[in-house]
Amino acid sequence: VSDLTRPRGTPIRIAVDCMGGDHAPEEIVAGAIEAGRAGGLDILLVGVPETVAPQLPPDVAETLGRPSSPAVTLVPSDRAVPEGAPPLQTLRAMPNASMSVTMRLVHEGRADAAVSAGNTGPTLLAAIREIGMLAGVRRACVGRQVLEIHPETFLIDLGPTIDSEAQHLVEFAVMGTTYMRVFGGTPDPTVALLSNGREPGKGNKVVKQAAELLGRSGLRFVGLVEGHDLMAGGVNVVVCDGFVGNAVLKTVEGLGREVAAWLRRELAGVLPLELTNDLTNRLVEWTNPIELHGSLPLLGVRGNVVMAHGASDRQAIQAAIAQAAEAVRGGFVETLRAALAETRERLGGTR
Amino acid sequence: VSDLTRPRGTPIRIAVDCMGGDHAPEEIVAGAIEAGRAGGLDILLVGVPETVAPQLPPDVAETLGRPSSPAVTLVPSDRAVPEGAPPLQTLRAMPNASMSVTMRLVHEGRADAAVSAGNTGPTLLAAIREIGMLAGVRRACVGRQVLEIHPETFLIDLGPTIDSEAQHLVEFAVMGTTYMRVFGGTPDPTVALLSNGREPGKGNKVVKQAAELLGRSGLRFVGLVEGHDLMAGGVNVVVCDGFVGNAVLKTVEGLGREVAAWLRRELAGVLPLELTNDLTNRLVEWTNPIELHGSLPLLGVRGNVVMAHGASDRQAIQAAIAQAAEAVRGGFVETLRAALAETRERLGGTR
Repeated sequence: VSDLTRPRGTPIRIAVDCMGGDHAPEEIVAGAIEAGRAGGLDILLVGVPETVAPQLPPDVAETLGRPSSPAVTLVPSDRAVPEGAPPLQTLRAMPNASMSVTMRLVHEGRADAAVSAGNTGPTLLAAIREIGMLAGVRRACVGRQVLEIHPETFLIDLGPTIDSEAQHLVEFAVMGTTYMRVFGGTPDPTVALLSNGREPGKGNKVVKQAAELLGRSGLRFVGLVEGHDLMAGGVNVVVCDGFVGNAVLKTVEGLGREVAAWLRRELAGVLPLELTNDLTNRLVEWTNPIELHGSLPLLGVRGNVVMAHGASDRQAIQAAIAQAAEAVRGGFVETLRAALAETRERLGGTR
Repeated sequence: VSDLTRPRGTPIRIAVDCMGGDHAPEEIVAGAIEAGRAGGLDILLVGVPETVAPQLPPDVAETLGRPSSPAVTLVPSDRAVPEGAPPLQTLRAMPNASMSVTMRLVHEGRADAAVSAGNTGPTLLAAIREIGMLAGVRRACVGRQVLEIHPETFLIDLGPTIDSEAQHLVEFAVMGTTYMRVFGGTPDPTVALLSNGREPGKGNKVVKQAAELLGRSGLRFVGLVEGHDLMAGGVNVVVCDGFVGNAVLKTVEGLGREVAAWLRRELAGVLPLELTNDLTNRLVEWTNPIELHGSLPLLGVRGNVVMAHGASDRQAIQAAIAQAAEAVRGGFVETLRAALAETRERLGGTR
């Protein structure tokens, strides 16, 4: 029996780090309480009690500490790891940092998923240290649908780990495939490697090795794709090293803003300002899904963890919590564990 | 005395591979003759005589073979290396392939620069084999201004070599700096490394090593930049591995086309079709400068070589030849040779 199972019929329990993020604790607490109400979720607010408690609405504050399975619980922690502090040393020196306590609740089976808007480095590290990695995964990663107009295409890895080897790219492919099965409504996702050309034999050393492995991985590998293809959609999972994915993702975000600025100049006097603003705002939104309102599930960790953007407001936190609940409902981690084991078995002696 | 120098006052001589490219030989020959007329250049048309000669306008055909320093000369060669043929083996088996003969004219001092729209792989290899590399450069590379709205920003390397080491990135930085001095009108270009974050210490292994080297290279190194910064312009030379540059470049091209298609849908019924078409065509142009009409100077080779796009028409060939002439006039290769020597000296024992 897995420590990740959860009795049927009981509400999903989400641990929320209330101390991390630009708008902590106000917006985090507000978003968490709203998400709990909207989704019928049990919310565990993790934070410094004297900081978090004053943020609670009266009706919630009233129920705190009552024994009747409360929908909102306050779990005491210290503050978050401060911006700029060295993550590993600081997490060691602060065993009850808010992100560590949040992740620990998942590890101990007291929460089904964790959400944090804290700094990426310490939050990722806290998840790995407290929850641990799935068997056969050597590095956690993040991926996402890069363009909102092409939700069928998921790019993985976007960092924060880099200098990936071929085996890591295979792991990313399994994680992306599982993600698109559980969250993307795609029963049998296609997988491709991002490369500098489509022809077999293109790619850097690591891509060439990964192509060989993916060809016999049992995944639905369709070969190499280029940046053009990534933007045009179609392939379900596009795999790359986190350094490359980060460069590509930020280029997309930056170009979306540049085109919007160019359009504002070009359309001045041609379209009413209101229409131009609506158009350019929507363009910036669909080219900047993470930057503006995104959350990213952390992949490879032995529990459901959603990393919300540092600038998250209450709506963004609510969306991140909804995504965490979806991961729990879809059995994301269990499905991923099985998929990793299957690929490992197929590739046999290579690992 | 360098073999690259050229007596003052004599016309610049450009060797043009008439056999490479989608529209060879018609468009290549037409563009070359037009460029020669417009720029007061001597043009050496390289190709299979019975294929090229019929393309010549009567007034040019008439002057061929006359001893009075003709503006257009026909230099016989075999055909180009065919698409898909293994470049090295084929170049060895075809010693007089058109790209090889074109490059050889530069090596022998019979031309000041070479232009080819042939396939990238064999054209690059022919340049390296026939002309050779500049001292201290271990790989040829290509770069360019990625966005026409930010001509102040040059991205290097865009391939075709990949798996760069830190020393290669330093060479790219010198080449990009020299390019922007000679072609970009920038006396003292700033240089940055493309990375997954701006903070010191970010970057993959190669970027970290390159940052250390660039810091004491004598170049105007300003640190690490992200994809956002690349799109926003400002920095003059952004350096990356060719695999990364290729992925970024093609993502920009692809996203430009996606946004144009989105705009056509959004503006249907809002703007007159003609205005929408004009707007979206211009967007595709400034996000696809290479794809649509671009040529790329090959950097690191001991001679001026411009690689035109395979789809080049006569206008594109004319522009490529004009760029080659500009390289000769600006003393690009000599300037680059001096800059490489200076950096080598500063970095001293590390190479």
